[in-house]
Amino acid sequence: MKHLNKSDLNALESRYRANLINSCSGIKSVNLIGTKNNSGTTNLAIFNSVMHIGSNPPMLGFILRPTTVRRDTYTNILDQKKFTINQIPYDLIECAHQTSAKYEANTSEFDELNIEKEFIKEFEAPFVKSSALKIACSYTNSYLIEENGCRLIIGEIEHLIYDDRAQEKDGWLDVSKLKSTACIGLDAYVETKLIKRLSYAKPHKNLE
Amino acid sequence: MKHLNKSDLNALESRYRANLINSCSGIKSVNLIGTKNNSGTTNLAIFNSVMHIGSNPPMLGFILRPTTVRRDTYTNILDQKKFTINQIPYDLIECAHQTSAKYEANTSEFDELNIEKEFIKEFEAPFVKSSALKIACSYTNSYLIEENGCRLIIGEIEHLIYDDRAQEKDGWLDVSKLKSTACIGLDAYVETKLIKRLSYAKPHKNLE
Repeated sequence: MKHLNKSDLNALESRYRANLINSCSGIKSVNLIGTKNNSGTTNLAIFNSVMHIGSNPPMLGFILRPTTVRRDTYTNILDQKKFTINQIPYDLIECAHQTSAKYEANTSEFDELNIEKEFIKEFEAPFVKSSALKIACSYTNSYLIEENGCRLIIGEIEHLIYDDRAQEKDGWLDVSKLKSTACIGLDAYVETKLIKRLSYAKPHKNLE
Repeated sequence: MKHLNKSDLNALESRYRANLINSCSGIKSVNLIGTKNNSGTTNLAIFNSVMHIGSNPPMLGFILRPTTVRRDTYTNILDQKKFTINQIPYDLIECAHQTSAKYEANTSEFDELNIEKEFIKEFEAPFVKSSALKIACSYTNSYLIEENGCRLIIGEIEHLIYDDRAQEKDGWLDVSKLKSTACIGLDAYVETKLIKRLSYAKPHKNLE
């Protein structure tokens, strides 16, 4: 086992440290966030930090990096108060990763990368048509993380659209059946396979 | 495709909604957080929300549910300012899940579930000995999410201990090689397999 303490970590070359620290929290969700700016240009960006915040009301969150450079997703969310979260099927991995390239302002990643978009009539932000799990959120709040200038963005779920062949009777959705990509670090993509579901844990009671 | 809007979601039975909303953000990290209280009793609890916050300084975070019931992990972190994050290998899944049972105060999940603990001399909180990736953090800050009473807890990495056979030359750690469990929703555990790593994305340049 390798053991790095704080001063070892500080001494690492910055790209090496970023690769290591980004992979050490474990397997991460990876999703495409779709937005639209005030001129109507659509935007699509990959995020590896979408997280569950609460189910009543249904809310998700994600971490936005510091706004020291242009962050179209954030600007569009503040302007339009709407965004979509789209699952990444395995066959969309390259295109999804490529959305992280710094395209010029007012370029739509949907058009640039030939990712088919989709709209529903009740919601303004664009979805990724081929995703098997699509979520429309309205912007709720943003928390500035003082330690490094990142933000936790919170949205409430307005629409949830999914392939319900992967859903079980108790509501649980087996996203591994939907070929939902997950990731490690900044650039590695994984497939997943269900090992097991377990019963609600109680003291001194065997799990099923 | 099934389409649920906000009022459909609100009308769902609460357990069904919790299962659905907890699984819709995609594959999640799952880790065991180790702490110690002021009397010296160790605690171990499973969290499916550990996330990368930043690599310089190296920081991780996790979401803590509302403190309307006893939250030993949180109390211990506030008291001792230290916690560990431990990867869950496949063969520890049942024990890890069982840590979510509501044991009485001053019960150590390490002892109750026969999970072997480990200490390093420079750090007070307990590690899970069999984890292939263990992280010692000092508590940095906590952000209350007003919308539902959850908290984002931030810690800075003090020690990073890992099986470096899974590490590549550029620092990236292939946690899928370490048999690191990930999860879906509240009770389902998955294994992962690397599909590919991709190069840094630039406009109009093919990925490698």
